[in-house]
Amino acid sequence: MDKDVERLLQRAEKPSADAVRLHPLYGGKVQVVPKVPIRSLDDFAVWYTPGVAAVCRLIANNKKKSFEYTNRMNTIAIVSDGTRVLGLGDIGPEAGLPVMEGKALIFKYLGGVDAVPLCVSATEIDELVSLCKWISPSFGGINIEDIESPKCFFLLDKLQSELQIPVFHDDQQGTAVVVLAALKSAMRVVNKSLEDIKVAMVGMGAANVANLRLLLKAGVRIENVVACDKDGIVADSEVSGPLGELLMGSNPEGKTGGIPEALEGTDVCIAFSKPGPDTIRPEWLSRMNEDAVVFACANPIPEIWPWDAKASGAKVVATGRSDFPNQVNNSLGFPAIFRGVLDVRAKKITDEMCIAAADAISDFAYRKGIDEEHIVPSMDDEKMYVEEAIAVAKMAMKQKVAQIYLDDDELEEKVRRNIKSGKEIMSKMFGI
Amino acid sequence: MDKDVERLLQRAEKPSADAVRLHPLYGGKVQVVPKVPIRSLDDFAVWYTPGVAAVCRLIANNKKKSFEYTNRMNTIAIVSDGTRVLGLGDIGPEAGLPVMEGKALIFKYLGGVDAVPLCVSATEIDELVSLCKWISPSFGGINIEDIESPKCFFLLDKLQSELQIPVFHDDQQGTAVVVLAALKSAMRVVNKSLEDIKVAMVGMGAANVANLRLLLKAGVRIENVVACDKDGIVADSEVSGPLGELLMGSNPEGKTGGIPEALEGTDVCIAFSKPGPDTIRPEWLSRMNEDAVVFACANPIPEIWPWDAKASGAKVVATGRSDFPNQVNNSLGFPAIFRGVLDVRAKKITDEMCIAAADAISDFAYRKGIDEEHIVPSMDDEKMYVEEAIAVAKMAMKQKVAQIYLDDDELEEKVRRNIKSGKEIMSKMFGI
Repeated sequence: MDKDVERLLQRAEKPSADAVRLHPLYGGKVQVVPKVPIRSLDDFAVWYTPGVAAVCRLIANNKKKSFEYTNRMNTIAIVSDGTRVLGLGDIGPEAGLPVMEGKALIFKYLGGVDAVPLCVSATEIDELVSLCKWISPSFGGINIEDIESPKCFFLLDKLQSELQIPVFHDDQQGTAVVVLAALKSAMRVVNKSLEDIKVAMVGMGAANVANLRLLLKAGVRIENVVACDKDGIVADSEVSGPLGELLMGSNPEGKTGGIPEALEGTDVCIAFSKPGPDTIRPEWLSRMNEDAVVFACANPIPEIWPWDAKASGAKVVATGRSDFPNQVNNSLGFPAIFRGVLDVRAKKITDEMCIAAADAISDFAYRKGIDEEHIVPSMDDEKMYVEEAIAVAKMAMKQKVAQIYLDDDELEEKVRRNIKSGKEIMSKMFGI
Repeated sequence: MDKDVERLLQRAEKPSADAVRLHPLYGGKVQVVPKVPIRSLDDFAVWYTPGVAAVCRLIANNKKKSFEYTNRMNTIAIVSDGTRVLGLGDIGPEAGLPVMEGKALIFKYLGGVDAVPLCVSATEIDELVSLCKWISPSFGGINIEDIESPKCFFLLDKLQSELQIPVFHDDQQGTAVVVLAALKSAMRVVNKSLEDIKVAMVGMGAANVANLRLLLKAGVRIENVVACDKDGIVADSEVSGPLGELLMGSNPEGKTGGIPEALEGTDVCIAFSKPGPDTIRPEWLSRMNEDAVVFACANPIPEIWPWDAKASGAKVVATGRSDFPNQVNNSLGFPAIFRGVLDVRAKKITDEMCIAAADAISDFAYRKGIDEEHIVPSMDDEKMYVEEAIAVAKMAMKQKVAQIYLDDDELEEKVRRNIKSGKEIMSKMFGI
């Protein structure tokens, strides 16, 4: 593995220059284009007035028909207030737009999902709830994104309970899906099981709160968990609200101290905290159990360099970077999750649907062949997205949150066709 | 001209069947697709993390850069609450969506403008203002649409004064541009001038209020105007608010009565009122001056059939229908107006810019050759849109509401390229 730290730091900055040069050249990353052919102006009599009035009347009589007769069947909004964009903090909606456009690009390319980037100047929870409610008649789902913590927790809860369409917070649920998938694969590599492992959570922001929630749903036991944030190990009695509830029963031996004490005697470290490389020091990892698994996911520099983690006894190391092995990459999750959700018109995205997505990712990796440097599939295997979307859709049908019920063949055909469509458009438009 | 009334009524319904059949087949009319090529997954390092962070930082330091580095430079929102959709009334946001999607289709196809259809469940003016304000960081302009009167007047005023991006209400300003263009051509045909004509306005909804406003700005004199709504001739002293202000000084001879009395001794009738064919009766038109001009724009059936209007002495007759001569068609206006606005990044859309658009349309028609059955250009002449957009952009620069200043060649090249792009995408995507 490349250990030239200077060069690695530079490499993390390398695409920046290209980005600054290319963004104004193209003037944005997504565009709104026809989905229907216009052979002559006469066609507007069907797609616009007078013909369209008949479609309007039909939907006026039954609002649900909007999912069959309009973009709603395949369109979601990506809503952000720009208060926690990447690692940049509260940079505002205008500055968050390039990220949401990039996300929309990935939604289409990998999932065939039409996503509208909406960076908004609303910042209060009530404002964001009103906004999402008001725009919901135009969309089949909403993905909220890059919203600061703890606002994002309350917002997601409120939106999920008040909106009639599925709401997803990728920084929470999407990250959790991919972390769970990677962890399941890592368990196969080190031959341990979720039910038995002791887990140190480092950093208790939106990502790790959501990670822990899903891990507990997936089999990790709360008495095997110790959580640590910037003030040290978190005692469940010290915190209130959602985090307090989540941590209830954790750290039963009453460990105190910081990251080194938290790591003592654990099998897994899941860090989503401060960029490194010295957030987690090598000698601290030596206190972990044998065959330790370390997810050091801060960007752009992981909490500890992978080679240092390995030298200190970690068997499997994952990071958020594409230039190291085992990238914990949200793009493995959200495009296929929404694909599955839209194709059976799920009313919500349940934890079980998220776990089904994680299982599909992990199983796909397993069948391709996993080892300590290959616990997650690469982004370029279309088949993985198809399997993941199908798993999500099937769980939605099983849990009766779907509004379209398809048999296996129909579902696979629909998912496959829709996922393919994203790349087909790229090839039509750019000849690639 | 085809006078088989039964068949005409049927023909007005003909595209409905196609629309109901084809809409679910395509599942919506517009989609969100890449504007940038993705040759491999490595490209995401530039368009998404980590590279995109540099672009975010750049915009965080100067918000205006969002117009250069994001979709904002070419993207507008089409916002409707669905309270007055086509002639269908208050059918709600879901049912309004097919129309806004159709409008987005036309924006791209004729103007190369990326338009996002947003049908919203907000209906109070304050809610709609908040919504538009909140989403404005993601857009270069907002087109409000199909919002009931009188709410639309207050809303437009408020949005224009409070937002930092241009706001346009197509049912008001867009219609007015095309009516003014058609009227200017009609004046050439009958050899009269705006300054001298006596005008009867029939129906005082959003369209005709805006029409009258622009006609007055363009040279029509208020003392030559008489307005008539469903309760008969409107005396300026009887109405308050914006309409009262607008009509102040009209109907100086104090005419009373209904449409027939309003038409007495006028040169021009501009009707945007109740669907006909008997809203305006033939014998009423005989009371107009020689070489009368009649715009009967109710949809789908004009206030009077064109042949009846002609038999009663009208020299030029225009309607809203594409199957009769002289269609007053908003699609001649909004795509090119926004094209011009975006290409010089105008901060607002002034009346003078609207008049410049109307002049460009009318002049284009004149050069092509006008007569009583050809006062407006057809929709299929790309050159018209280019000239109109240039006229709008030039007026914006002249009035110093532009934020980009280009010389004639640069402007023409930019406008031409952008307008062409809409049809190029169609040909790439559908091979047509």
